[in-house]
Amino acid sequence: MPTDPRDAPITSVTNPRVKALVALRGRRRARQEQGVTLVEGYEELDLALTAGVAPTELYLCPELSAGDPRDVAVRAEQAGAQVHRLGRLAFEKAAYREGPDGWLAVVPDIETALADLPEDPNPLVVVCGSVEKPGNLGSILRTADAAGVTAVISVDPVTDWGNPNVVRASKGAVFSVPVASCDTAAFLAWARERGLTVVATTPDTDEYVAGLDLSGPTAVLVGSEKHGLSGELLAAADIRAKLPMFGRVDSLNVAVTAAVVTYECVRQRMATGA
Amino acid sequence: MPTDPRDAPITSVTNPRVKALVALRGRRRARQEQGVTLVEGYEELDLALTAGVAPTELYLCPELSAGDPRDVAVRAEQAGAQVHRLGRLAFEKAAYREGPDGWLAVVPDIETALADLPEDPNPLVVVCGSVEKPGNLGSILRTADAAGVTAVISVDPVTDWGNPNVVRASKGAVFSVPVASCDTAAFLAWARERGLTVVATTPDTDEYVAGLDLSGPTAVLVGSEKHGLSGELLAAADIRAKLPMFGRVDSLNVAVTAAVVTYECVRQRMATGA
Repeated sequence: MPTDPRDAPITSVTNPRVKALVALRGRRRARQEQGVTLVEGYEELDLALTAGVAPTELYLCPELSAGDPRDVAVRAEQAGAQVHRLGRLAFEKAAYREGPDGWLAVVPDIETALADLPEDPNPLVVVCGSVEKPGNLGSILRTADAAGVTAVISVDPVTDWGNPNVVRASKGAVFSVPVASCDTAAFLAWARERGLTVVATTPDTDEYVAGLDLSGPTAVLVGSEKHGLSGELLAAADIRAKLPMFGRVDSLNVAVTAAVVTYECVRQRMATGA
Repeated sequence: MPTDPRDAPITSVTNPRVKALVALRGRRRARQEQGVTLVEGYEELDLALTAGVAPTELYLCPELSAGDPRDVAVRAEQAGAQVHRLGRLAFEKAAYREGPDGWLAVVPDIETALADLPEDPNPLVVVCGSVEKPGNLGSILRTADAAGVTAVISVDPVTDWGNPNVVRASKGAVFSVPVASCDTAAFLAWARERGLTVVATTPDTDEYVAGLDLSGPTAVLVGSEKHGLSGELLAAADIRAKLPMFGRVDSLNVAVTAAVVTYECVRQRMATGA
């Protein structure tokens, strides 16, 4: 087992490393100050490593992770992580899940500040306005990854990008697509500065998405599962647009709407060579 | 309580009505012979009624359904259902869920035989090849409803349309979109007979969906979460087509792929007036 850490396992729940993990878990400010976040779970770590994330520390509880292959530990170490073993009580103290599986890593923050999002000659940004369900956010990230969007921004977030269910549903795309969070005012200022046309998807319009020229710099806004986009975002958008809906059921799923509109942007860009 | 059934509650687990329900639950042939199926659960029934389904019988266990509003019972009765009360043991015998909520109805079969699917001058059909996850099938149905497709067909089904999780995820669209199931040979014969161009979505092609003329009679095929489309369906398709994928994550979600391709068909139809 070349990956077995060589230091003695940490068993005390008051060990400084355990305390530091608890602080990172519980305090947004601690994460912000250190520019790191936590990734918990074998599968999640596997996805992060595959996406090129380099953990700085890996905490492993052999008692809990007994059945798992050790490849993730090898890869984390190769990516530069210090590996530490934790006893069960210490691990359970540090972990944020109920029933932790024995894998926990400190990774560089997966969120990017708005100002640091990649410059793109022709940006295409997906904006989630208070989207709530991790499965939808994860699906939006997978589509964003496939469609090659510039970034995905959560405005007035309800569920954060580091939510373990978002990470899982995104199949790792949360680590490969630049993600940011901010409030409405900050998003609007940023969008103006970057010269984006802000397109609000809403059934409350006569304009169809496919009738618009979406081949230039564009932000596609989708709203929450229950309430759609906020009045503030709707009012500030340059255009409101909808998909044709001929059915009897109330509305399209938010991740489906985001995907259809995003791929319409991609189609137009490919058609016009933009 | 005007909706309270007037007959005495059925308490015997050997009552003929209970036996008939058990037969419907357990035997596909019993369902086929009678042309009916079961819908269980308050929410599911609510969705079915909203979609215009007319239950023939409603079985209610007041002991289990105590907290639920009675509107669904009123509406079922107005739609023509006979309402029967069941004691708890009798209900649990008839119900198919673990932890039933006290609502069970006999409804006309939600599946349509291939030959009886609506004739459409310009059909657009979504075909799910062994799609497994109820959430994906439900999402595909919601999109199909919104996009106004002719029908959704499950080929070599793994999960049936009556699966309670499909019903729930579809938000009732399983009752508003014509659905059918069949094997590959039956589907291909039907598609030829109806003059459909069979489009297989697969990453294994150089052809992009948006580069094709999809404004005529079209069947869009999507494959299973794990394995994609079967070799048989891929080989029999008239065209293979893909969506552009620029990302690092393996593949688009099947319901997302179905939605993007379906709406590309809708876009082309609206653009050409087809």
